[in-house]
Amino acid sequence: MRKKSIAIDMDNVIADVETHYINWYEKETGIRISKETLKGIPETEAFPDKQAIRRFLTTPGFFQTVPVMPGAKDALLKLHPIFDIYIVSAAMEFPQSLTEKKSWLQEHFPFISWKNIVFCGDKSIIGTDFMIDDLLKNLDTFKGKAFLFTASHNINIDKYTRIRNWEEAVPLLIAEK
Amino acid sequence: MRKKSIAIDMDNVIADVETHYINWYEKETGIRISKETLKGIPETEAFPDKQAIRRFLTTPGFFQTVPVMPGAKDALLKLHPIFDIYIVSAAMEFPQSLTEKKSWLQEHFPFISWKNIVFCGDKSIIGTDFMIDDLLKNLDTFKGKAFLFTASHNINIDKYTRIRNWEEAVPLLIAEK
Repeated sequence: MRKKSIAIDMDNVIADVETHYINWYEKETGIRISKETLKGIPETEAFPDKQAIRRFLTTPGFFQTVPVMPGAKDALLKLHPIFDIYIVSAAMEFPQSLTEKKSWLQEHFPFISWKNIVFCGDKSIIGTDFMIDDLLKNLDTFKGKAFLFTASHNINIDKYTRIRNWEEAVPLLIAEK
Repeated sequence: MRKKSIAIDMDNVIADVETHYINWYEKETGIRISKETLKGIPETEAFPDKQAIRRFLTTPGFFQTVPVMPGAKDALLKLHPIFDIYIVSAAMEFPQSLTEKKSWLQEHFPFISWKNIVFCGDKSIIGTDFMIDDLLKNLDTFKGKAFLFTASHNINIDKYTRIRNWEEAVPLLIAEK
């Protein structure tokens, strides 16, 4: 039987960019923004310096040094034999992120083949069975079954089946195989 | 009405890598291989030095300097208002090609938005209506309507609707809109 396929986002799903933003902001300004502050608002609005996020996203080394989302590696190791897993990241807006994201995946998820990595602009042409993403805009154009991965900015959204963390994701996805 | 979507390959479709291989091989060895020699065999087998293609593919600057396929720019300018055009390239095997391919597209096809560029490994998850590619392996897993773009290596294949060049492509695709 054909394995079902899952498109898994990078930023805020397997890569903890939220924590990375907070750490980089503190390193730059000395101000530590709490996770609580980020709840329910876009990340670009959540920091006193509104240009900070865009500046970080275009700084060489930012994507290379993002911490792995807690539980993501263990979860993907468990899901990997059961599903065709594709890492699908909207990397095209920031071209310098392309090689850093590829290298980061090689470092932290070496069991994901280069054949299963997709860097794109919009995700509307991705034809997998499932998609896990933290951004509504990516799930809204998806034709398969969509899962919203919890990030501070999306906690008030009630439109898709929610995955709160990677521990919760594994049994939830296996039930769909 | 929703525009139909086309996934268009880069190498041997909008980027003339065949000519680029021949030119680089001549520059390196002094030997000019004719296009005739390339007919019906894989490119990696077509040059006396069997390692040459792989060496070129991993040389910085190779992808940045590929000539545009004759007619490709004019054709895409005509098709652009009629279809959702996505450039879909298997770039993941050679990570240094990622930024060069992105930069090449910006230089030669600036009217293609970053939102419509996809770099992937295998293309089986691409869910567009049409796909234009020179490689059977990409068309074989595609669920929409597939077009085989003529390259020397594929001239004996008789499995998909063939597009021999970009002049021919425009009316053929417009008939499908």
